[in-house]
Amino acid sequence: MGKSNGKVWLVGAGSGDPGLLTLRGKALLERCQVVVYDSLANPKLLDYCPPGCEQIYVGKRAAAHSMTQEQINALLVEKGKSGKRVVRLKGGDPFVFGRGGEEAEELVRAGVPFEVVPGVTASIAGPAYAGIPVTHRDHAAQLTIFTGHEDPTKTESSLNFKQLASTPGTKVMLMGVERIGVITTRFIENGASPSTPVALVRWGTTSARCRSSTTDNSLGS
Amino acid sequence: MGKSNGKVWLVGAGSGDPGLLTLRGKALLERCQVVVYDSLANPKLLDYCPPGCEQIYVGKRAAAHSMTQEQINALLVEKGKSGKRVVRLKGGDPFVFGRGGEEAEELVRAGVPFEVVPGVTASIAGPAYAGIPVTHRDHAAQLTIFTGHEDPTKTESSLNFKQLASTPGTKVMLMGVERIGVITTRFIENGASPSTPVALVRWGTTSARCRSSTTDNSLGS
Repeated sequence: MGKSNGKVWLVGAGSGDPGLLTLRGKALLERCQVVVYDSLANPKLLDYCPPGCEQIYVGKRAAAHSMTQEQINALLVEKGKSGKRVVRLKGGDPFVFGRGGEEAEELVRAGVPFEVVPGVTASIAGPAYAGIPVTHRDHAAQLTIFTGHEDPTKTESSLNFKQLASTPGTKVMLMGVERIGVITTRFIENGASPSTPVALVRWGTTSARCRSSTTDNSLGS
Repeated sequence: MGKSNGKVWLVGAGSGDPGLLTLRGKALLERCQVVVYDSLANPKLLDYCPPGCEQIYVGKRAAAHSMTQEQINALLVEKGKSGKRVVRLKGGDPFVFGRGGEEAEELVRAGVPFEVVPGVTASIAGPAYAGIPVTHRDHAAQLTIFTGHEDPTKTESSLNFKQLASTPGTKVMLMGVERIGVITTRFIENGASPSTPVALVRWGTTSARCRSSTTDNSLGS
């Protein structure tokens, strides 16, 4: 009978600072039987897991994936079907460039019950810890979040740089450090002013941030 | 001496479900001396405040403001200067259309120490609870969040509907229910297809949502 009770929770771990985990996320970790985590979630959060909880690291740093997304999807289905309470712990929010959408689709397809627990996204918390409100009544009525790291198998970028360059409001690029030169160039080619103010936030919301770069800069420098 | 220890924390309450408060937000509520809250934060969260904590309701529903933003700013400065530990509890994230930027500026100006504690924003959690990932590797490399309720004293909208209408990816409008007819019309006038799929999420992430509308619809109907 236990088999039918399996469920997967796609839990947003928040963006680095372990205090940014939600109460619901913590409660689910405290009673899970399997946790599937990657390098974007703060490893301190695993301390909430009960003794005997199976902890599976699935890697994922830009270049060095321990497991492909397909393998992760299959793992979630397998563990869910085995009747376990599974937490898939994902950095930030599961549905903001976290591939949570794909994991959810796979669980739907396999008939495994699941739930999404949103988290604090780095796209908003990173700037906030650096003192930058992403919207402001007087200055920014719009926030655009885009990925600097698209599917490498895509033949064409679905980012429209002409449009992005002229979009008003605040623009936040995630996962763009590898391609930052190319992307900056494309912004300027498409009409963005080289003096557009830019902040680079690395290790946002973690104590490591204080030691590294929160640099006010501009596109052209 | 106590006076110099006053501090204000701008805390994101998350978007309705009290389980979406962060651990840090809860810890701050548990030891605050003053909490300044409005109708967008879930009132259940006030149960975390210690006995004797001064609880100040500052209202804010579209038409019926109990206090103006200027009065709220002045209140935060006053309480902070009086040496108290003040939590300003704001629905969602303080910096996503929450006027947290203005409150922060005012605290800077007055020399009151403050800190921002990001929260789970309704712009991402609302769709997530309704089953909609706001980004997806195959379908949406960009997320645009905009306000449907701009400063009424602005002579001109800073929203560029021509551009918004043709922006790829997912678009989330917050606080747009009063102007939804006008905004939909402007989208279509500016080239958006009347068959663009639309979801309306009301009371997202709260139990009330289940009884009300999560409607799949389109711009043209």
